[in-house]
Amino acid sequence: MTILFCSDSEPAEPWRLACARAFPDMAFCAWPDTGSRDAIRYALVWRQPPGSLARLPNLKAILVLGAGVDSVLSDPELPADVPVVRLVDAGLPGPMAEYALYAVLHFQRRMADYFEQQRTAVWRRHDELLARRWPVGVMGLGVIGAFVAQRIAAQGYPVAGWSRSGKSVEGVEVFAGATGFDPFLARTRVLLNVLPLTLDTRGILNSRTFTAMPRGGYVVNIGRGGHMVDADLIAALDSGQLAGAMLDVFEQEPLPAMHPFWRHPKVIVTPHVAAPTLASESEAQVIDNIRRLERGEPPLGLVDRDRGY
Amino acid sequence: MTILFCSDSEPAEPWRLACARAFPDMAFCAWPDTGSRDAIRYALVWRQPPGSLARLPNLKAILVLGAGVDSVLSDPELPADVPVVRLVDAGLPGPMAEYALYAVLHFQRRMADYFEQQRTAVWRRHDELLARRWPVGVMGLGVIGAFVAQRIAAQGYPVAGWSRSGKSVEGVEVFAGATGFDPFLARTRVLLNVLPLTLDTRGILNSRTFTAMPRGGYVVNIGRGGHMVDADLIAALDSGQLAGAMLDVFEQEPLPAMHPFWRHPKVIVTPHVAAPTLASESEAQVIDNIRRLERGEPPLGLVDRDRGY
Repeated sequence: MTILFCSDSEPAEPWRLACARAFPDMAFCAWPDTGSRDAIRYALVWRQPPGSLARLPNLKAILVLGAGVDSVLSDPELPADVPVVRLVDAGLPGPMAEYALYAVLHFQRRMADYFEQQRTAVWRRHDELLARRWPVGVMGLGVIGAFVAQRIAAQGYPVAGWSRSGKSVEGVEVFAGATGFDPFLARTRVLLNVLPLTLDTRGILNSRTFTAMPRGGYVVNIGRGGHMVDADLIAALDSGQLAGAMLDVFEQEPLPAMHPFWRHPKVIVTPHVAAPTLASESEAQVIDNIRRLERGEPPLGLVDRDRGY
Repeated sequence: MTILFCSDSEPAEPWRLACARAFPDMAFCAWPDTGSRDAIRYALVWRQPPGSLARLPNLKAILVLGAGVDSVLSDPELPADVPVVRLVDAGLPGPMAEYALYAVLHFQRRMADYFEQQRTAVWRRHDELLARRWPVGVMGLGVIGAFVAQRIAAQGYPVAGWSRSGKSVEGVEVFAGATGFDPFLARTRVLLNVLPLTLDTRGILNSRTFTAMPRGGYVVNIGRGGHMVDADLIAALDSGQLAGAMLDVFEQEPLPAMHPFWRHPKVIVTPHVAAPTLASESEAQVIDNIRRLERGEPPLGLVDRDRGY
């Protein structure tokens, strides 16, 4: 019985150690070394090479080492009948909330201006803007989105959330579905995207969305690069409709050196660091799910392939 | 009966309007226009020109338009027998906590590295450091310090506080007095100064203090410039004992253009903006104190001149 590790970017070693500790009787292979394909029972995957999960006749589950499964589901050779399981927490919400809060504070407290002034030793104060006048809007109210929304609300910002189902979150004004989207945008000064990437949400950060916000707002993308229509963002920044953006995810990563985001004065680019999946944090959850599957119990974080998360 | 406004830097107009609304029967003057000196009953002051409060025979109270009173008490001609009253909250704790939290996040999440990388389109991740491994230490546990400590603790950082008396604060490990100072420093990675400036605390951010912290720590000063021994900070940064500093207050303000802080690569300078006193926030408290004094009640925020706050 073998566990296959399959990723084009993450190191296998932490997972090899974790699996050896938890399942001393199971073998561990890292793709492209698969050993006997018939022996592979579980696949631990993050951005797997397309086709790498095909022809595994005894594969029992695909355990995704992250919260977003769009890259896994986009593999045309993904086995159709094998359950896909994602991380539902695993230490992601805390770092996500830190990144989001940093972005909000950076914009609200005009830190870019102060950093720029320091270059030329300029002592100049800018208008103070109170947190209660900075309505933050969180797109996506899953485990991560709800956590991010509450952490930001705890700092005194008026926070609203928007999601398909409009799940209620304490201390957060909730808007739901297509009819709730424009009212949600109309009251939002900093728009934070934490949505999963699905057919419904691809390209949701576009001109129409930006135009529905009050002029001079900000966008923070910690969802997926596919949510953003890059040209629409640049047009909104250049027209003044948006005043700034902080982006951690991109359609192509690493972001190509010639991409205009790198050099746009109103864009902050970070290299997908908002919430790296930490082996130390997510390991317990993956191990627990393998144990559940071995006992014949349903895993936590089972993905609905039609819904996309 | 007259209210005298006396500041070398703050505008008088918001206070003129506030006083006219609250006390339509009182006159309002802005120094150096004092009108009849005998008529002056209350002085609203912020960094008053030295001597400007002398020879006011009927002055009943000096109402400081900020939380720190060191600049007021340092005036050699300050009337000896007139109560000095300071702001005890007035909207300061929220902005202070925002600034402090921004500094902690900036250092923990290595944002300076990412900003620098963006200049040359470099996509490189740095080690992720979890909030729970970033012990924050808050010097000063008055209304502001306690609030700042709790706001940072709410984001998952282990927070300790240090003060003379060791006042207990929920969710915060408290160290007290001279014997508690070194143990407090030894567990602190980000040192946040919110102390009042007194004879006891002047120069407290010095080489000895920095050396008692674990190597590679950070210092954030939102207290007063007089707390910092500038040359000691630069030496600690250059030796690597400290990894960075974010400074909002300085012995001389504006910070002179030739001061080395402006150009030091490990120092962030902001122009005393952590928590500007907002007329809209502090006005209610000052007006309330004048009403209390008129009724013969003690004001809130009465300063103990010997203690210095």
